[in-house]
Amino acid sequence: MPTATRTVAVAELERLCSAALAAAGASAEGANACARILVEAETMGIATHGAVRVPDYARRLRARGIDGRAEPRLEQRAPSLAVLDGRNALGPLVGSRALEAALATARDAGIAWIGCRASNHFGALAPYARAACDAGFVLVAGTNASSTMPPWGGAALRMGNNPLCIAAPAPDGTHFILDMAMSVAARGKIRAAQKEGRPIPEGWAADSRGRPTTDPAAALEGFLLPFGAHKGSGLALAVDLLAGALSGARFLTDVVTWVGNDERPQGVGHFFLALDPARLAGREAWSAAMARFRALLLDTPAADPDEPVRLPGARELERRARSLAEGVSLSLTLLDELHALV
Amino acid sequence: MPTATRTVAVAELERLCSAALAAAGASAEGANACARILVEAETMGIATHGAVRVPDYARRLRARGIDGRAEPRLEQRAPSLAVLDGRNALGPLVGSRALEAALATARDAGIAWIGCRASNHFGALAPYARAACDAGFVLVAGTNASSTMPPWGGAALRMGNNPLCIAAPAPDGTHFILDMAMSVAARGKIRAAQKEGRPIPEGWAADSRGRPTTDPAAALEGFLLPFGAHKGSGLALAVDLLAGALSGARFLTDVVTWVGNDERPQGVGHFFLALDPARLAGREAWSAAMARFRALLLDTPAADPDEPVRLPGARELERRARSLAEGVSLSLTLLDELHALV
Repeated sequence: MPTATRTVAVAELERLCSAALAAAGASAEGANACARILVEAETMGIATHGAVRVPDYARRLRARGIDGRAEPRLEQRAPSLAVLDGRNALGPLVGSRALEAALATARDAGIAWIGCRASNHFGALAPYARAACDAGFVLVAGTNASSTMPPWGGAALRMGNNPLCIAAPAPDGTHFILDMAMSVAARGKIRAAQKEGRPIPEGWAADSRGRPTTDPAAALEGFLLPFGAHKGSGLALAVDLLAGALSGARFLTDVVTWVGNDERPQGVGHFFLALDPARLAGREAWSAAMARFRALLLDTPAADPDEPVRLPGARELERRARSLAEGVSLSLTLLDELHALV
Repeated sequence: MPTATRTVAVAELERLCSAALAAAGASAEGANACARILVEAETMGIATHGAVRVPDYARRLRARGIDGRAEPRLEQRAPSLAVLDGRNALGPLVGSRALEAALATARDAGIAWIGCRASNHFGALAPYARAACDAGFVLVAGTNASSTMPPWGGAALRMGNNPLCIAAPAPDGTHFILDMAMSVAARGKIRAAQKEGRPIPEGWAADSRGRPTTDPAAALEGFLLPFGAHKGSGLALAVDLLAGALSGARFLTDVVTWVGNDERPQGVGHFFLALDPARLAGREAWSAAMARFRALLLDTPAADPDEPVRLPGARELERRARSLAEGVSLSLTLLDELHALV
């Protein structure tokens, strides 16, 4: 049976989410920043990091695991270097403030690194990247997260699915936005294989003793694996060092899980590196380079003629444009849940 | 029949390589920098980027594809931002100068980004990372390279195996050094499977039309694939944007191949980002964080008791310590070739 859905205008959904977060104790600025980041992910088709998260955020706000009134504090360490103490505020408020500081500094100094500590789950990275690119800046950003994977060769959870984002602005809006987490596949895909009685591909998961498996049942009792074996594992650890340890935030198993523990601050760390391409390549050279880069890529013969080669982020940016024009489709169940929170 | 080898002291090998490069037309500083970077990779067990490359470098120097007398020029764009115009000098000279500038700037300003253009193949990244870590700095660095892979979904070469390195210093020398290229497997491994009549794992390669294959013969006529499918592909493209386009260097198919074309400059681009952890986390907090990070990781139960979980780079750093004490083992064929170049 298909889920009953309704199409909602983006501005309306943002108001609804913001009202739900404010009702749970968030400041006006925090509720707005959080609603903006989550709803932008929704418009991009990243529904896992969209409006569906609002009830989680509201629950943690009510339980005081997130401090809805906290005021993040910027500690400038050098002209291009700062740490933002999130003081356990809403993650998307911390992230939005850090991005704002990074862009303002990079506008002056060509480069900025802002590390964030004492933060929480801050949504998907693509919305921050889109904003940086629209402002004309290259963005490299990442966050750590609570442990959901073993390091390569391990048989116990130690590291998060720490996403990394690398984004480069194109003056015509066709930005390059790579936003990727480090697991090879989501648990949902393994559950689907189990239901259909199919084995899962090699490399997706390990059993509870850490041995590679293609049996979905053994996988579900075991561990998700990082993409690219030791390479994805190394990258997840590297992002944890840059986002967590370097910011003075928690890292590895010290990050408190998002699921449950509603009353405990997560202690998540993030980093935002902004660079001004006009100061490095030069404004016109950069514009020409991005156009040539895109043309060379899109011109690649496709392995499957129905699946042309695309720029990372192209699908999400096109989906966003469509969502802004036509609204987004949400399940009635979720909409009811959001309305009940207000 | 095993290859005949001889063990050579590291300092002796460096002198030999430097003399071979100088005889091919490199300046004393260029020959020394190049020998140091290549021999350090050799000591770390990264033999593909070790002394075996010296004859290639010498050939390109003789053919004037690399300008052995060129003086790279630093263009400071902002206090923490510079572009190093390599002027077609030896890649390891450009890389060493860029690293030196990055560390000097980060010592003052906490952070530095140095983009390099008009450079050439500059060896492995791990030697640069080891030097940065020994000096107490976090290093993120990358380079582009000539095209050896299709982008994900493509059926033509468009991008290089662009390596990325993320390294973090531990005061006791147990640095975290992740240095990874973007292909899932080297061609040599596919040739070995063909000889033994084995299929290759899914995801290693595509046939000449870009379709996934497990047949080693079809793979050898086709393409190496990036690790982690679209994720590794996106990362290779992102490194090309940061190292190539952002530095005003060549990128994608415009980078001239290292193999053949000995008389043509490659136009490679690199980037070096150095960060001072003492300015971000604080000196003592960083030291404690690196110790805890390592302890949490090494404490992970291993899937295979004979293969304990290790920190990325640990194997290479241990191998280097052994090489410095005991020398490195090289084939007599390569040693003869190096002596013949002097």
